[in-house]
Amino acid sequence: MASQNSILSLPNARPYAFEFPLSRTALVIIDIQRDFVDPGGFGSIQCGSDEIFSRARAIVPTVKKVLDIFRSFGGHVIHTREGHQPDLADLPAAKKLRQISNPYGHHTMGIGDQGPMGRLLVRGEYGHDIVDELTPWPGETVIDKPGKGSFWGTSIHRQLLARGVTHLLFAGVTTECCVTTTLRECNDRGYQCCILEDCTQGFDAQQVTTSLDIVCGQDGLFGFVGTSSDFIAAFNESTTELTPPATPPILGDDGLPPIDELISRYRKGISTPVDVVNFVFGKIEKYKDVDPAVWIQVESRENAIAAAEQLMQQYSGKPLPPLYGVPFSVKDTIDVAGIPTTAACPQYAYTPSDNAPAVQHVLDAGGIFIGKANLDQLATGLSGCRSPYGITHSVFSTQHISGGSSSGSSVSVGAKLVSFGLATDTAGSGRVPAAFNGIVGFKPTKGTVSAKGLVPACRTLDTITVVAPSVTDTRTVWQVIAQHDPEDPFSKLPHSLVTWKVDFRGPRLGGFTFAVPPACSLAVCTPAYRELFDRAVQTLRASGGRLVPIDYNIFEVAGDLLYEGALLHERMTCIGLEFLQTRLKELHPVIKALFGQALSNPPSAYDVFRDQALQIQLTRKAQQTFDTLRGGVDVLIVPTTTQHPTIAQMEAEPLKLNSKLGTFTHYANVVDLCGANIPVGMYADEATGTELPFGITVLGGSGYDAKVLDIAGLAEMAFQEGYAK
Amino acid sequence: MASQNSILSLPNARPYAFEFPLSRTALVIIDIQRDFVDPGGFGSIQCGSDEIFSRARAIVPTVKKVLDIFRSFGGHVIHTREGHQPDLADLPAAKKLRQISNPYGHHTMGIGDQGPMGRLLVRGEYGHDIVDELTPWPGETVIDKPGKGSFWGTSIHRQLLARGVTHLLFAGVTTECCVTTTLRECNDRGYQCCILEDCTQGFDAQQVTTSLDIVCGQDGLFGFVGTSSDFIAAFNESTTELTPPATPPILGDDGLPPIDELISRYRKGISTPVDVVNFVFGKIEKYKDVDPAVWIQVESRENAIAAAEQLMQQYSGKPLPPLYGVPFSVKDTIDVAGIPTTAACPQYAYTPSDNAPAVQHVLDAGGIFIGKANLDQLATGLSGCRSPYGITHSVFSTQHISGGSSSGSSVSVGAKLVSFGLATDTAGSGRVPAAFNGIVGFKPTKGTVSAKGLVPACRTLDTITVVAPSVTDTRTVWQVIAQHDPEDPFSKLPHSLVTWKVDFRGPRLGGFTFAVPPACSLAVCTPAYRELFDRAVQTLRASGGRLVPIDYNIFEVAGDLLYEGALLHERMTCIGLEFLQTRLKELHPVIKALFGQALSNPPSAYDVFRDQALQIQLTRKAQQTFDTLRGGVDVLIVPTTTQHPTIAQMEAEPLKLNSKLGTFTHYANVVDLCGANIPVGMYADEATGTELPFGITVLGGSGYDAKVLDIAGLAEMAFQEGYAK
Repeated sequence: MASQNSILSLPNARPYAFEFPLSRTALVIIDIQRDFVDPGGFGSIQCGSDEIFSRARAIVPTVKKVLDIFRSFGGHVIHTREGHQPDLADLPAAKKLRQISNPYGHHTMGIGDQGPMGRLLVRGEYGHDIVDELTPWPGETVIDKPGKGSFWGTSIHRQLLARGVTHLLFAGVTTECCVTTTLRECNDRGYQCCILEDCTQGFDAQQVTTSLDIVCGQDGLFGFVGTSSDFIAAFNESTTELTPPATPPILGDDGLPPIDELISRYRKGISTPVDVVNFVFGKIEKYKDVDPAVWIQVESRENAIAAAEQLMQQYSGKPLPPLYGVPFSVKDTIDVAGIPTTAACPQYAYTPSDNAPAVQHVLDAGGIFIGKANLDQLATGLSGCRSPYGITHSVFSTQHISGGSSSGSSVSVGAKLVSFGLATDTAGSGRVPAAFNGIVGFKPTKGTVSAKGLVPACRTLDTITVVAPSVTDTRTVWQVIAQHDPEDPFSKLPHSLVTWKVDFRGPRLGGFTFAVPPACSLAVCTPAYRELFDRAVQTLRASGGRLVPIDYNIFEVAGDLLYEGALLHERMTCIGLEFLQTRLKELHPVIKALFGQALSNPPSAYDVFRDQALQIQLTRKAQQTFDTLRGGVDVLIVPTTTQHPTIAQMEAEPLKLNSKLGTFTHYANVVDLCGANIPVGMYADEATGTELPFGITVLGGSGYDAKVLDIAGLAEMAFQEGYAK
Repeated sequence: MASQNSILSLPNARPYAFEFPLSRTALVIIDIQRDFVDPGGFGSIQCGSDEIFSRARAIVPTVKKVLDIFRSFGGHVIHTREGHQPDLADLPAAKKLRQISNPYGHHTMGIGDQGPMGRLLVRGEYGHDIVDELTPWPGETVIDKPGKGSFWGTSIHRQLLARGVTHLLFAGVTTECCVTTTLRECNDRGYQCCILEDCTQGFDAQQVTTSLDIVCGQDGLFGFVGTSSDFIAAFNESTTELTPPATPPILGDDGLPPIDELISRYRKGISTPVDVVNFVFGKIEKYKDVDPAVWIQVESRENAIAAAEQLMQQYSGKPLPPLYGVPFSVKDTIDVAGIPTTAACPQYAYTPSDNAPAVQHVLDAGGIFIGKANLDQLATGLSGCRSPYGITHSVFSTQHISGGSSSGSSVSVGAKLVSFGLATDTAGSGRVPAAFNGIVGFKPTKGTVSAKGLVPACRTLDTITVVAPSVTDTRTVWQVIAQHDPEDPFSKLPHSLVTWKVDFRGPRLGGFTFAVPPACSLAVCTPAYRELFDRAVQTLRASGGRLVPIDYNIFEVAGDLLYEGALLHERMTCIGLEFLQTRLKELHPVIKALFGQALSNPPSAYDVFRDQALQIQLTRKAQQTFDTLRGGVDVLIVPTTTQHPTIAQMEAEPLKLNSKLGTFTHYANVVDLCGANIPVGMYADEATGTELPFGITVLGGSGYDAKVLDIAGLAEMAFQEGYAK
């Protein structure tokens, strides 16, 4: 039996054997909607022959078999539905009129007309939905498309990229129309495609046959043609286990398992969300002795258990959503309805009535909220030492800082008190503490996760981030929260986000390019950090990476612009000038000093305009650095921070050292990058004799989140293999 | 014989007669490259049969016949070429490897390999180019595509929208691959498509036949299939002249003809660019008596004649580029190499060594530079009364203002001294003077025309604009200058720009929606303006427009934000704070007063951040106003300005009245709209007894330039018909 990590082959495919790694393969089921396969729908009108039409319905049991297999190992499943908004605003006039205007035609009704299953091809109507046998499960992607192809007016390309998909198995109707149109679009973008010929049908036998011939003719013009029986046989016979299952590096296994394993246990009935909640609360209780400063407010055990019970009831006997029963923490700058948002500043606190959209998406996906995590006051700082709720320390050392500002969030994950945390990152707040706690901290592209319900630091720079033990878990959570929010004016419009061609070989075999800061820029790091970074670079080169030079100066100038220029003063406006002026004395001493200094030396309006013009120029240059069509690199790799101070060191030099820690993080949001810290090694701190983690950050251009995660995942795996040696 | 304005029909097309208006139809010739039809190219390898392969080459003479017809009436022609960058950075691994990896295959070479005609399917190689018989003419669109379809990685959709194309006739190779893949993509986006079956071929007879059957089967699943002979017959037999040729409204015909007519005269040898240059210089000389303030520097007649002669030599016996021999003016804030850029401020003047890219594009397209036009100093003002080079007046009245800041540009066009002008628009500078001179003033979306070589007013708001007598001429020039400039950091990335579905019926028959300001907002206009605006609204409703309500307040708040908030202070930084501080006394009195006031009351940095946050919010709301998929409108129609003051009135009240004139223009760039002033009527000014023009502005959302021009063109025609009555 195959697993997620198998590579399968359909030996009898045309024009030759089709090979595909299950972890990167999606099953794409095209338009098996009632409207296309049940009597009285649009398909029956279009087809015009009852006998031929009935063949389309006949593929459903075969498709179901393949779908069941994909579901059995948690594979990627994409369903498409052709249809239109009820107001038909997305229906082109030609599509509405061409077929019904044929004076000799058989189209008695058109799109939008009332049929026996509702208005034809209109979203929300009974006929528009997918047939019962194939009803999508929560977490499976449903693409509502106004076209016959699946790319016009949809986000399918970014959805596939988000999942790291490179290979597609196609099923659905009709072969000659929507199936091959979508396949052709996918092929242009680099996906390696195969149609399962017994899982597709059309409304004309000759057209079906020839459509398949065109796909695989000329040595595979568009792709491959295979069969479900070949697929089923390959799956059942496979014993390949090419790579070990991704497990969190470094930490012992006394805590929560990876998300997919946790959900697999739920599915099998080995655990229940209530068990896990009790386990988590036990761990939290115990960890208070180790570090009492992790939380600002832990949810009551009763509420959490009630949430778990509610989930169990809701999903009893049903397929589970992607974060079912997964416990998570929330940085206390992000709103959870009914619970005070303090921003680690009691003077600032308010109680929101709504969840931030990011929190709501996690709850909708089955997540269980565990508590609000501590942070550097007003999300200002990279140390974790600036909160009236106490100083957190690294999960690896009571003497060393946890990093901040997402200090509690990172410790809650690093100590395995929760499966993941929602945190934030303006100048490094999500990446630095991840590095100091040996976990992944992923800062998506600005404006791709709703920033509603987030206490703003600098609204033009803030991003909600994910902290989690592994890249795989991070990716699962990110896919849940990265949803466009039209109500967030700082959000990027979906159509404006970049897409790129995929390499079906994946980054290890297909290769990738990366850049690193020059030696002079790395000199700020401790010798131990420099050595670990060098080793990381060697590992990446051994894993398909090709090191290429770039102009790194762009990023240094951008970093200076944030902390030495006018840009950061945006936070005075965002936090509230009046609040800061009147309540300054009551703030944490370090924050008071920092903001006091800023308020007494404000930049001029002209300084702001000047620095913003420079920011725009640097942003364009930075983005060109990641444009691989114009000689750019896939990713930039940096040490996440420069050193790991002790709490004592930090308190002795709170401002200067803080700024140094952000050397490699400050610029990311200034020039609109995304990036993920991944733990890549341990070292012995000489002064204290402690084993501490070391992290690198994989940085990518605006919108290249999926590429960053692809390469971060590859790197994580490479380093884990390295540890194993 | 048909003309640009004919509607043709292919009566024998399948599944039924294909009708198409020539003005909105493009001939799309797919991939007739040497590499696909000549021996030794990629096609011959792919096909694998010499006999079948030779059929592909055989279509070329037939395609040429259809192409010749399109060229004869100036129709839209799109050529596509499949191929890749020399570094193959845009070549997906699957495309590179799949066909050559077939162990039983005939692909002896792959893309990028060296063949007898150069590297296979690599741009710049001999084999990659289109066959000699069909070599693209200047002004025809060439789409270089990395895919088999034409939409992945290209701008074809925006190029078709830019041309107002709704119908496509397809020719090319191969039918089963690139032709039908592109046709399917076009169909999804609303284009009405027809393949000319004798103009297409493939590498497998069955596949070709069935591919065509699929296109037109099921009552026209994807479109129509016709023949070139039907097309040629329809073209030759047509006598339809549905609409009069677009001529500039209002003005008499004593000047330059429309651009297409001018070029047609050149083609026929009726005129030469030298004749036209002499004619233009004669007109300019005469107009100095009417208004000596139009120009800051007129090019020497010798230089202009030399440029004309150079063009005549360069294009002797060759097809002409789209602006061949077309005389144009340049606002004196835009660089023309070797000529001082003064910005109407001699103290500021410098002599650039390079043309601004917009100027360069026009020159490359055959335009003849005539002179640098006067403007309100430092592009500050909407009156035309603020220049040390004199006060321009409206071409309709010596007593009335010309409007500004693009005063000289608009007068140079309004007086028919040149065919068009390149001007600018930050807060209305391109639209207001267009209204006061009875011409079209089109402000494209910010960042879609390079702003390099432009003296900045507010760099985040500035746009280069086109002033021209008609929408048709404006569109021709806009298509030449709207090219992405990677070196302009304020430019929008092409992939980020919006696209939308087309309606093959066009806006008049297909309908469109528009909004207008509420009565209370229009109250600021004079009674004559209100009446003219009401009449314009009625005309639009009679021309397919449906009036729908919107929240207009967004735009009013945005307008206030510019002039009463902090945003406009960006210009101090852009023009140069030191320059303004040291040379203030030397500036034009009104500008001195304005900037003196601003410099003595600068906003704080916090004001800037606050206003920018509001700007971002308003921008999102404004863009939602134009999202027709979410209940938005196609366009917003406003009176371009509120009244037409005399020069005396303007001088009596230079600041307050100026601000009033911008009531309906100030907000467009603040919330990232595009817009075109079009003249829609004349009225008698009671006080002076002068006949004056009235203009409305058609405003659209970011990137909707082509839609604005579609509706502006329709409106222009409707109003011209109105005048005719």
